[in-house]
Amino acid sequence: MEKFEINILGCGSALPTTKRFTSSQMVNIREKLFMIDCGEGTQIQFRKMKCNFNKLNRIFISHLHGDHVFGLPGLISTLSMLGRRGELVIHAQPDAEKVFRPVLDYFCKESDFRVCFESFNSNVNSVIYEDKSVKVSAFPLKHRVPSAGFLFEEQARPNHLIPEMIAFYQIPVHCLKDIKNGDDFVTEAGELIANSRLTRPAEKSRKYAYCSDTAYSEKIIPWIEGVDLLYHEATFCEADLARAKETFHSSARQAAEIACKANVKQLMLGHFSARYPDVSLLLKEAQSVFPNTIAATEEMVVQVGE
Amino acid sequence: MEKFEINILGCGSALPTTKRFTSSQMVNIREKLFMIDCGEGTQIQFRKMKCNFNKLNRIFISHLHGDHVFGLPGLISTLSMLGRRGELVIHAQPDAEKVFRPVLDYFCKESDFRVCFESFNSNVNSVIYEDKSVKVSAFPLKHRVPSAGFLFEEQARPNHLIPEMIAFYQIPVHCLKDIKNGDDFVTEAGELIANSRLTRPAEKSRKYAYCSDTAYSEKIIPWIEGVDLLYHEATFCEADLARAKETFHSSARQAAEIACKANVKQLMLGHFSARYPDVSLLLKEAQSVFPNTIAATEEMVVQVGE
Repeated sequence: MEKFEINILGCGSALPTTKRFTSSQMVNIREKLFMIDCGEGTQIQFRKMKCNFNKLNRIFISHLHGDHVFGLPGLISTLSMLGRRGELVIHAQPDAEKVFRPVLDYFCKESDFRVCFESFNSNVNSVIYEDKSVKVSAFPLKHRVPSAGFLFEEQARPNHLIPEMIAFYQIPVHCLKDIKNGDDFVTEAGELIANSRLTRPAEKSRKYAYCSDTAYSEKIIPWIEGVDLLYHEATFCEADLARAKETFHSSARQAAEIACKANVKQLMLGHFSARYPDVSLLLKEAQSVFPNTIAATEEMVVQVGE
Repeated sequence: MEKFEINILGCGSALPTTKRFTSSQMVNIREKLFMIDCGEGTQIQFRKMKCNFNKLNRIFISHLHGDHVFGLPGLISTLSMLGRRGELVIHAQPDAEKVFRPVLDYFCKESDFRVCFESFNSNVNSVIYEDKSVKVSAFPLKHRVPSAGFLFEEQARPNHLIPEMIAFYQIPVHCLKDIKNGDDFVTEAGELIANSRLTRPAEKSRKYAYCSDTAYSEKIIPWIEGVDLLYHEATFCEADLARAKETFHSSARQAAEIACKANVKQLMLGHFSARYPDVSLLLKEAQSVFPNTIAATEEMVVQVGE
């Protein structure tokens, strides 16, 4: 299967600790890297995980709280010093450009590449990026400031050719691409060979959803329904639910309830408050509701759909 | 002796590595903390070194390159979340406020404390801060952008009373403070007892100088003459001198030459380029010119004048 994995650069909440960095993840789809959020220290974690800075394609910012964006100027400076030339697109809410452009103009003026902010409306569900490998949608979460979840969907892949059948019908090489994409084949004798005899269907497209920061909200369920992997914030445990409500965050149990109701395949908890040096309590709490739950940790790599 | 120590939070140059953070130090004088520079990740190192955020007094910024300032927004957010109320003063060049005020206004608007930028002119030598414990001067370095060195001078301390003499002359408690500060004493019989018979002189005031970033410049010598500890950048080794010149940095040998000519007591090298995972070569190079040299490393604590 082609690569589709999540690299956890940071999964702490607003206060970083000595062990936990603020929010950032790298989604690797077919060796293209897409960053989600960029808290302070992201570039250090990036290096620690031996990700290739050159493959960084786009950055998606969920919301404009410091612990999700303060790593941007440092990362962009570093990309500049490493000689990047290709444009870097940052998908974020409109204010992001207003706040960061002056900082970048001041500190990265010798840069050989352009940073381009593409703003999106986090109040609606919409496709904000699409290429041959992936489609990324944003959808509204429920937080103190406008906050977006992201859905990464692999694009449909071509069918697999059945080598024995290709050989048997002596199909010319130049026809193979169309057959992979669903065409039937007509032999020289005029016989039509149905595509289903020549190919096996491609694997089902995998889906990854990122929901942080957000209070418990069933409104997000239609957008994350059935995903292979759901990252849902679990800033607090159920005993601290009052604090979770007050700050528009979720408890681990609530994350699991969403996972259950949305019928996802696997749940990953993250965005842990600094008050929990050990998150095993949060993990157990979630697993009691939704067994296939894991807890994110820095430098963890999680395969989507395996 | 009262505390006067340097905590190294980060001593790498512009590109952070997995082991080295960008520039930041904490000067602890009599349990007041003064920060010099604040690169990305400073707050993480601050926590790792178990420094007390509440004791952070003022921040001194040498120059406006990202690797010396990108940690400011995160640090200030964290101070805000930890409930700080006392004003925080940042001594920096005038542009600092222009660039960072909008970021702080956007991300730290719920703060209970004021961040106050006090600008100074880095083209001249001047006292920029003074209290009962310390006097801080700035002086011009030689870099691609205006850059300042800092001299931290302990204030003169009161003399030590000689207990036997105080008892012998039955000196009342209310006179002791003045005697510590140099007054003579007159007995009831009218006899004048010279201060020198009642006290031993205080230890000599200690001095610490921070010079980063800078090219080799003998012009700084008068300002750092005879300091107990000199932190001088040594971004490169002598073999990479061409690169040092081009970027207005110093080699380790050049740092040692300045230490020699300024007759300092101890030299600490820092601001190492990412190209040297191991700086023992730079250390040896400097020690061949100025033997009492050490190399900074993250989380190192160095006593000034011991």
